[in-house]
Amino acid sequence: MRLNEYERQLQEYLESYITPERKERMRVVLKQRTRYIVCVLEDLYDPRNGSAVIRHCDALGIHELHVIENRNHFKTDKKVDMGSAQWLDIRAHRCSLLEQTSPKGLKSAASGKIRESKPVPTRTAEALSALKNRGYRIVATSPLGHSLPESLNLSAGPVAIVFGSEKHGISTQVREEADSTLRIPMVGFIESFNLSASAAIILYILSRRLRNEELPWRLENDDAERALYEWVCRTAPHAERLIEKFRGETM
Amino acid sequence: MRLNEYERQLQEYLESYITPERKERMRVVLKQRTRYIVCVLEDLYDPRNGSAVIRHCDALGIHELHVIENRNHFKTDKKVDMGSAQWLDIRAHRCSLLEQTSPKGLKSAASGKIRESKPVPTRTAEALSALKNRGYRIVATSPLGHSLPESLNLSAGPVAIVFGSEKHGISTQVREEADSTLRIPMVGFIESFNLSASAAIILYILSRRLRNEELPWRLENDDAERALYEWVCRTAPHAERLIEKFRGETM
Repeated sequence: MRLNEYERQLQEYLESYITPERKERMRVVLKQRTRYIVCVLEDLYDPRNGSAVIRHCDALGIHELHVIENRNHFKTDKKVDMGSAQWLDIRAHRCSLLEQTSPKGLKSAASGKIRESKPVPTRTAEALSALKNRGYRIVATSPLGHSLPESLNLSAGPVAIVFGSEKHGISTQVREEADSTLRIPMVGFIESFNLSASAAIILYILSRRLRNEELPWRLENDDAERALYEWVCRTAPHAERLIEKFRGETM
Repeated sequence: MRLNEYERQLQEYLESYITPERKERMRVVLKQRTRYIVCVLEDLYDPRNGSAVIRHCDALGIHELHVIENRNHFKTDKKVDMGSAQWLDIRAHRCSLLEQTSPKGLKSAASGKIRESKPVPTRTAEALSALKNRGYRIVATSPLGHSLPESLNLSAGPVAIVFGSEKHGISTQVREEADSTLRIPMVGFIESFNLSASAAIILYILSRRLRNEELPWRLENDDAERALYEWVCRTAPHAERLIEKFRGETM
């Protein structure tokens, strides 16, 4: 959605507090951002992995990251992501059950003796369906996947690359909903890379191919404009105080 | 070096305790092993990074890993490498100073007030010179490197890819000794990947290219034979006890 007049003025006001070098850097980085590939993390457990993938996405220009929480809250580790989360469009799909239940409660429910095992309500289906409605093909990563990162068809339209949890990999729901599956070819005794390494390899190769294959990968004008607006609002020095001040002056 | 008669018999004896499936797996993996690319880790600090790279090397068939210790002992984290170290030829270059000094002692010496700052004796020069004598070109990885993993010249001969420490990157010595430098192209705000991700991307791309470019990357016969012998000696069930028993019976 285009910026309205108020947002335009706020951005101009905040930008007056940002150095020209910083503004230039934002514009350079913005030109390389894409939503043609989006990254989806399903129910990660280890904060270091989530943060590593956030850092990969920023470094590779992948602007949109979906975080699906089913059993685990998505947590990050600042020492690993080094503040790169503020430069991404991160969308959380939170399980309401998880919000209401403490981790301890969840654990005891899981280990408790419940006769009927009802399917756990998860946010995976909802998240994938929303992506499909936006025209994304769902690509599930798995050691048993069919395509390789070098040969996955990118010209058929934008792709959402789904990485599953550290222990169990992608869920049955992802497997069922996926339009294609992707694996990293391996030749050793160990049969998987760790999550951060898998994501680094796959996202690197796909984002490089995107740029070489002349696909319409850049952000659209309105989208880029809004991304810049959000970066300015999040990262201007003392942004919160400035925004409050601006609001007071214009109201 | 070829196996001698004693080693041959010991291997046969130990193999009688290994399942046929396991033996077959060893032979399949062995065929994909290479020393055309070797990996060198200079002075890593975080055990998770060292272990992640060990796991990458196994998964990608990179058989030889050099570990240079200057200020930091190389430590691993079993939860990350999942036992893959036993399938590699890992060569440690240990600083004798480090062996004699406790980490505490080292730290206080570093922060203490020493007038003359003598160059710290390191094992980097020695390790690189040994690799050069074996015909390796030294390739230093750095955010300021020239080549990209997709275009690094692999046909000029075998390469030793050097990854530097988490905080400081490669040392001046590596920079000076390197025949070429390698970087991962990035387009975000963050200017580096974490070490495990860099290594995953670079080693994956190079090892895939190796296999596609028809280079003489396989282990030579004697080398492969010895690698298998070592795997059998390390991984046969109750190997230590069996080796002792065999020694008793044949002496």
